[in-house]
Amino acid sequence: MSHPAPGVSPVIPSVGAVAPVAASAVRLTAGFWRTRQDLNTTALLDHCDTWIDRMGWYDTFKTAAGIGPDKPLQGKLFTDADVYKLLEAFAWEVAQRPDSVREARIAEIAGLIAAAQEDDGYLNTFFGPRGREARYTDLAHGHELYCAGHLFQAAVARLRGGTEDDLTRAAIRLADRICEDFGEGGLTGSDGHPEVEVGLMELYRATGQTRYLDQARRFVDQRGHQTFEHHAIGHEYYLDDVPVREATVLRGHVVRAMYLTAGAVDLAVESGDAELLAALVTQWENTWARRTYITGGMGSRHLGESFGRDFELPPDRAYTETCGAVAAIQVAWRLLLATGQSHYADAIERLLYNMIATSPNAEGDRFFYVNPLLAREPGIEVAEGEAPFRKDTLRANWFWVSCCPTNVVRLLSSLTGYFATVDDAALTVQQYFTGEVRTRLADGREVGIDVTTDYPWDGQVAVRVAGSPGTWTLRLRIPAWAAGATVEVDGQTTQAEPGYVSLTRAWADGDVVLLNLPVVARLQRPDSRIDALRGTAAVQRGPLVYCAESVVADTGAVDLDTFRLDTTAPLVEAAAQGPSDAAEVVRVRGVLADPEPTRAWPYAEPGTGAVPVPGAGVGAGAAGAAGAAAEIELVPYYAWSNRGPSTMRVWIPVDGG
Amino acid sequence: MSHPAPGVSPVIPSVGAVAPVAASAVRLTAGFWRTRQDLNTTALLDHCDTWIDRMGWYDTFKTAAGIGPDKPLQGKLFTDADVYKLLEAFAWEVAQRPDSVREARIAEIAGLIAAAQEDDGYLNTFFGPRGREARYTDLAHGHELYCAGHLFQAAVARLRGGTEDDLTRAAIRLADRICEDFGEGGLTGSDGHPEVEVGLMELYRATGQTRYLDQARRFVDQRGHQTFEHHAIGHEYYLDDVPVREATVLRGHVVRAMYLTAGAVDLAVESGDAELLAALVTQWENTWARRTYITGGMGSRHLGESFGRDFELPPDRAYTETCGAVAAIQVAWRLLLATGQSHYADAIERLLYNMIATSPNAEGDRFFYVNPLLAREPGIEVAEGEAPFRKDTLRANWFWVSCCPTNVVRLLSSLTGYFATVDDAALTVQQYFTGEVRTRLADGREVGIDVTTDYPWDGQVAVRVAGSPGTWTLRLRIPAWAAGATVEVDGQTTQAEPGYVSLTRAWADGDVVLLNLPVVARLQRPDSRIDALRGTAAVQRGPLVYCAESVVADTGAVDLDTFRLDTTAPLVEAAAQGPSDAAEVVRVRGVLADPEPTRAWPYAEPGTGAVPVPGAGVGAGAAGAAGAAAEIELVPYYAWSNRGPSTMRVWIPVDGG
Repeated sequence: MSHPAPGVSPVIPSVGAVAPVAASAVRLTAGFWRTRQDLNTTALLDHCDTWIDRMGWYDTFKTAAGIGPDKPLQGKLFTDADVYKLLEAFAWEVAQRPDSVREARIAEIAGLIAAAQEDDGYLNTFFGPRGREARYTDLAHGHELYCAGHLFQAAVARLRGGTEDDLTRAAIRLADRICEDFGEGGLTGSDGHPEVEVGLMELYRATGQTRYLDQARRFVDQRGHQTFEHHAIGHEYYLDDVPVREATVLRGHVVRAMYLTAGAVDLAVESGDAELLAALVTQWENTWARRTYITGGMGSRHLGESFGRDFELPPDRAYTETCGAVAAIQVAWRLLLATGQSHYADAIERLLYNMIATSPNAEGDRFFYVNPLLAREPGIEVAEGEAPFRKDTLRANWFWVSCCPTNVVRLLSSLTGYFATVDDAALTVQQYFTGEVRTRLADGREVGIDVTTDYPWDGQVAVRVAGSPGTWTLRLRIPAWAAGATVEVDGQTTQAEPGYVSLTRAWADGDVVLLNLPVVARLQRPDSRIDALRGTAAVQRGPLVYCAESVVADTGAVDLDTFRLDTTAPLVEAAAQGPSDAAEVVRVRGVLADPEPTRAWPYAEPGTGAVPVPGAGVGAGAAGAAGAAAEIELVPYYAWSNRGPSTMRVWIPVDGG
Repeated sequence: MSHPAPGVSPVIPSVGAVAPVAASAVRLTAGFWRTRQDLNTTALLDHCDTWIDRMGWYDTFKTAAGIGPDKPLQGKLFTDADVYKLLEAFAWEVAQRPDSVREARIAEIAGLIAAAQEDDGYLNTFFGPRGREARYTDLAHGHELYCAGHLFQAAVARLRGGTEDDLTRAAIRLADRICEDFGEGGLTGSDGHPEVEVGLMELYRATGQTRYLDQARRFVDQRGHQTFEHHAIGHEYYLDDVPVREATVLRGHVVRAMYLTAGAVDLAVESGDAELLAALVTQWENTWARRTYITGGMGSRHLGESFGRDFELPPDRAYTETCGAVAAIQVAWRLLLATGQSHYADAIERLLYNMIATSPNAEGDRFFYVNPLLAREPGIEVAEGEAPFRKDTLRANWFWVSCCPTNVVRLLSSLTGYFATVDDAALTVQQYFTGEVRTRLADGREVGIDVTTDYPWDGQVAVRVAGSPGTWTLRLRIPAWAAGATVEVDGQTTQAEPGYVSLTRAWADGDVVLLNLPVVARLQRPDSRIDALRGTAAVQRGPLVYCAESVVADTGAVDLDTFRLDTTAPLVEAAAQGPSDAAEVVRVRGVLADPEPTRAWPYAEPGTGAVPVPGAGVGAGAAGAAGAAAEIELVPYYAWSNRGPSTMRVWIPVDGG
């Protein structure tokens, strides 16, 4: 099928298996994601605006415009991009939820950006006449084109909301500048941090200017020839080790890998390059199968913020930065649109519930950056008002490098743009929510549905047809974890296998489909090749991964450190009690192991005792009665650290290994 | 006891429980360490000299002297120290094995150093008038005082060999300069990388100048007040988070931690500061008990080359750089001298056999830098003649940052200085070797022993008294792993408990003591708090840790990836066959697990199948018959990668978890 689908949608391919339903066509009225959408609108966006200002990252535009405060540049090489990501979020917001105050703020910031732009269209506050270096002098690390890519995405959001302004004009002028400078016969090389590719591709889609597509192709093709400086993890850091179409798995810096892949998918789709698309599909599948955490998080190494090797997935040193999850959703969504395969929507679901929902706190003024799956010691707290340099802390107001908060807000502002798709005669619900969809099928017919659910706490989803007479297909995604799902229409209940269930009939206004997804707590065991998880199990309930927190688990009777899960005992679900932002908890049973003895050396022949050394002061933690049966309560992973610093485990050691 | 023991010895405290026997008093005549000592003398030292020259690190001295080649500075901020470490090694060499060619080379390099020194005594090729920056402008990262500390250690080696020359004069002039600049009323602050402290302390011991001790105390006391720049792992990177005497465990950058501790132990000993010494003992013991790998290696994180938290000991991402092991030996030796406790000598043994012996290849032209305990994929090969930027490769000729090779050679050149101690009426053999000791007890009497053993392959050690009439004590260390050891003297066999066995008698020339250490393969299990090692076991035989290599293990019948160790089966020892630089191998029995199925997602409910996805290309490795009994051969860890790239496991998954 071929379709230019207009609307407020972050990705609008001209061709694909399915087409996006615009964010503006999906309205949330209640539930899990409405809560987060509201938090974004009422708190997170303004929080980011305030902090960008406080950090001096708007001031760099004033400096570049020659109207800046007389002080050294405050931002970092990539902070222009944070301004652009926030503007992108603002643009998605006002396109769906008109707000004159927000419009004025956009105009104000866009004016600043336009003022900072040079006469020939070049724009970056850290390079050029008022920057620190001449333009294009440090492509490997300078983030010039990376920042440009984010400006393009912000402009696309604005254009899709129907507005042309200082922002969109600045983006187009810069895009033209880059095409001049890096086009045929121009400079070679690309940015050490991909992003310009995906920005150019979507700007091409929004404007129809093929030179942007051509330039994106040049950037994608130039990559993989080991031209950037050496890096501690090798050329793969930049995805410069192997050409994009030859690689078989993603590697190196996670966000770089995902942004590059997103742009390359766009390029493959718009070019009809099936070979490139197939290579990108293989890369995603291998990455998902071997280099991804159960939360959907990616990035096994702090060094280089990078993927590890296959099955290198340590839970404690998981880097899994939030930006990587945002970027992975962008890739999965593109592959879903291109292929129509449900497992990409499964991936988006996993990432949304376990990575995106984890990021902000309930008050909307703090964010995680790094998202480990095991905290053997309580996490590092950050004082109110501090922007830490290190990233492996608990949630903080802001970070010295603060890419993640602005990435989360631009995703939440366009969230409903990832929830549904259409094709010729079908509307597909890709994610479950309470609200309504009013859109057109690809054949032009108007359709509407109202959805009601308490998902993810409960698996019943009621879909009520609103208007939309005629024969068309309502398609519902059955997640891979939902074996045993059923669909009830007109008193008839049928089994629905994981994948999609398609209901084609002559719908009438008010017809109701009841989907029943088996949202029950399930034990999960890791692939035996993940050495770091040997002898453990985790609990997932519906799309939510659960975890144990010492602040909940540790009592006089139970010490989380010695708790060993009994995998044969039933998992007990219960309504959450006390202060929690989760509706359901899961209680798991196990036994308490002997606490480890005081030891001078942590390795011993089985059956031999410890060798205490005077003065060592080595001691095991407090423990309950060894061998005793015990029960602990698990909470959704996204809610961890909401009850204060705590040790935490997603993967719990099992009794008997 | 109090004793200034003269001689060729890297550490000569004025007081302590035991005193070092000089390196020059211990002569190796054959065996494991003689082979490595010879390799050092005939190959490693010249290899380092050649590579330092090739990298241009001598040229920076010429540039600083104003006689340099007209090209940009080639070294890095810390490469002066590599020159000094090699000179230290040369100095230990010629003091024990006179060599006029080596002497001439020392004079040549020392002349270069003297020429580079400024008139006021300042010396660093990267700072000052011909350097890149003004002196002392980047104490956090500049390595100025760090390099100075290594110059002091080189000068101490020279002085203890009885020579004063350009090198020793340059060191003393620089030490005086630093005392002027950073002494009472001078600059505050210290170097981001400790080393100057231990250099000053030993220079104090070698010269008697108390201003060096006072300055070392100032540097130690200034640390721990969070004055350096922020770092991605926090102030602990610099050991600047907590004052030295308040810390309870080592943390941050491993080499920084160990060098600082070595200097602080020296300071505590020479100041009679029992409180400081107790704090350092506690830090060592907790570090050894909770933050050390079975190889003795330290450093769980590549980021910051740092310790992890307690029990964070991933085998695959073990950083465990060789320098950390050299530095840990320096600390353990100092604590042994201060306390006389055998477990410090046990630690040195573990580090020597499993970290130091692992470093060079048998040809003496390549070194490891990073020393993982698990290679899930074959390691990264480095071409001949290349000095890689990344450090996580297999052995390489050299590295872009090449601190480890020069650290290994200075240790090997002074190796026998770590093998024996004396106190008032006792000679203690701390390490086992074939060779002779001719020294004096602290009471002045001459004693001698000849030692014959095939250790570490065999546990029998024959100690023959040479001359040395009169009543004195021969003390032999019984390693902690050697429960069941016996000692036979004069036809009488007695049990010897781990620790020391002391034999006091009127010795006669030719008296023989036969020590029998139970060198047998033993299974080792990790502390249950080490999450990364759950469900695994390792094999140690005598002091040697063993490992499985795919190049040895993988055959048509056995796939190392699916091998599960049977912990109830006997470990079978055998003489090594074929190309190996080890004398003994260990065969372990187990079963082959089912290979993991092709999966689109690596986590699953127990008992559910995989969800294959078209195009994923996910596959398990080749495997033998699942469930079949199998046997694999383990080789000493130090020998890994000598038979080509290979996957490797120290910790082997056990059958049934």
